Amino acid sequence: MNQAHLQALIQRPAGEKPLACVDIGGTKVAVSMADARGISAKVSEPTAKEGGNDALALQIIRLIGESCAQAGIAVADVGAVGVSSCGPFVLKDGLVELAAPNICGGLAGKARGLPNDWMSALLEAPLRAAFPHVRVENDGVGALEAERRWGALQGVANCAYVTWSTGIGMGVCVDGHILRGKNGNAGHLGHTFVVENNEALCGCGLLGDVEALVAGNAIPRRFAAQGYADASALFNAARAGDAQAIALIDTLCNVMGRALFNVTALFDLERISLGGSVFWHNQDYLLPRLKLFMQGKLPALTNGLEIVPAGLGESVGDLAALALVMR
Amino acid sequence: MNQAHLQALIQRPAGEKPLACVDIGGTKVAVSMADARGISAKVSEPTAKEGGNDALALQIIRLIGESCAQAGIAVADVGAVGVSSCGPFVLKDGLVELAAPNICGGLAGKARGLPNDWMSALLEAPLRAAFPHVRVENDGVGALEAERRWGALQGVANCAYVTWSTGIGMGVCVDGHILRGKNGNAGHLGHTFVVENNEALCGCGLLGDVEALVAGNAIPRRFAAQGYADASALFNAARAGDAQAIALIDTLCNVMGRALFNVTALFDLERISLGGSVFWHNQDYLLPRLKLFMQGKLPALTNGLEIVPAGLGESVGDLAALALVMR
Repeated sequence: MNQAHLQALIQRPAGEKPLACVDIGGTKVAVSMADARGISAKVSEPTAKEGGNDALALQIIRLIGESCAQAGIAVADVGAVGVSSCGPFVLKDGLVELAAPNICGGLAGKARGLPNDWMSALLEAPLRAAFPHVRVENDGVGALEAERRWGALQGVANCAYVTWSTGIGMGVCVDGHILRGKNGNAGHLGHTFVVENNEALCGCGLLGDVEALVAGNAIPRRFAAQGYADASALFNAARAGDAQAIALIDTLCNVMGRALFNVTALFDLERISLGGSVFWHNQDYLLPRLKLFMQGKLPALTNGLEIVPAGLGESVGDLAALALVMR
Repeated sequence: MNQAHLQALIQRPAGEKPLACVDIGGTKVAVSMADARGISAKVSEPTAKEGGNDALALQIIRLIGESCAQAGIAVADVGAVGVSSCGPFVLKDGLVELAAPNICGGLAGKARGLPNDWMSALLEAPLRAAFPHVRVENDGVGALEAERRWGALQGVANCAYVTWSTGIGMGVCVDGHILRGKNGNAGHLGHTFVVENNEALCGCGLLGDVEALVAGNAIPRRFAAQGYADASALFNAARAGDAQAIALIDTLCNVMGRALFNVTALFDLERISLGGSVFWHNQDYLLPRLKLFMQGKLPALTNGLEIVPAGLGESVGDLAALALVMR
């Protein structure tokens, strides 16, 4: 999908209010504005981790102001704020707070060296006090909604978007219903167990979950000693015929294949759309292997399942927050 | 829950039509009638596996007739037929057919020695031709609806019922919506991978899925050579202090604990209700170990999750079909 085509898709009708799009990650917060001209005025900063546990929410409100200024929009004219955020979430009085171990020092333990002792970071409550309409969802849900609206999951009632990136995330739709769960955390595929491994430590504190084994940030941690500094080093070596790299990628595909099979058995899906930097830049290598893993396994569950690259490609993340609030 | 209390709960109001309750398993089909007196006139037979692929549906229609005769009801007076069946399902023209490898010889391969070559067994279409209202669901969904209506999952929007019995099954409700998926197969927890094992063969053909490792029918297959002929032999030995039996049960709990953790991470549940013969008769031993497995693992996902024994106890299966059609 080229940028011109994308901008045409997402243009707001003239006369409708601009929408603020907020993307929260463990290392970076980005805000942009969507209006009749498309998406513009993107500003970003390292995720706030110092001060009170409203620091992140205050940062977002300030960045929305800066993005408005860049776009020539009055803050009071913002129609809605869509927030696509890393998780997990906790609900306090029905409003989302972040309980992400890579942001909240009180959860992570001292070993991680975070400069705060937050047990959670305020998010939805301060935003609702500042803006008329706010929707906060896990970034897996945001990406799923973007893929369902503009991408590879249009018109598919039973589907998932899986991101294979720095971390592993997912959003799931079953029977046309997007799953949230008690705290909006449904779809945490990265924190499931599919093989037994008691060495690979995940950022969440679990040993040997999917994210600890195959995520972009796990590859240097696990394989740097064997000469692969990151995912692209590993995949480049495999493409050049390096037998050790090929064998390591086979173990990654075994883990991700099992994870995708589990998702199929538990949600009975018609289509899984895959994105994220690790997948996207190596889909020529990964997609055939993941499909092969699925082949012939319990046909009543896997027949009628398609595994496809994200229709929105590398733009999924950028469009996730917008998809949450665009009518 | 005692039987008198149960019968009172499920009594049909006077003047309402009787309901036929059909429970299909791989080895047995049971039919009973629910009317103003409660559930009665239970008849059962070995599951039909010979003849045309409508043999099972014809058997069910005949058994409903026999149950009606026993109950003193005219077949034409049956108001609805609830069918709680083993899976997996396939949909043909929107109607459920069974694609269960332990019933359909065409799926299972010759090794299993089934006396038919069915690729699927007709189910919903012949029943709909014979009765005015029919609802067919996976037995995990049936049990879930029974637990939600009368058991331990009443009023819980995010919950699952997991059966640990001859096989492993599950029904899941997220955001108040009971999950079905493209063919009604959502919740096939038994056919997910949580550890790597390439020796234990599941009835479905997979190697090392949850059911192959921990189901009631897996215990003799895996542990008979070590002296444990079935689940009760294994648990009795453990209770008597047999270190080998205790270690084997620990491996079972590791597998089931990981499966329940995965379910929690993927569906973000408030409560999981556990039943099935293996669990029910050994819950004193199993429940503390399963809770311990969960403890401290990614608190944002596991806080607020309760794991409880099925409120309906051993009656869950009997009430599953009724729950599907009782208003």
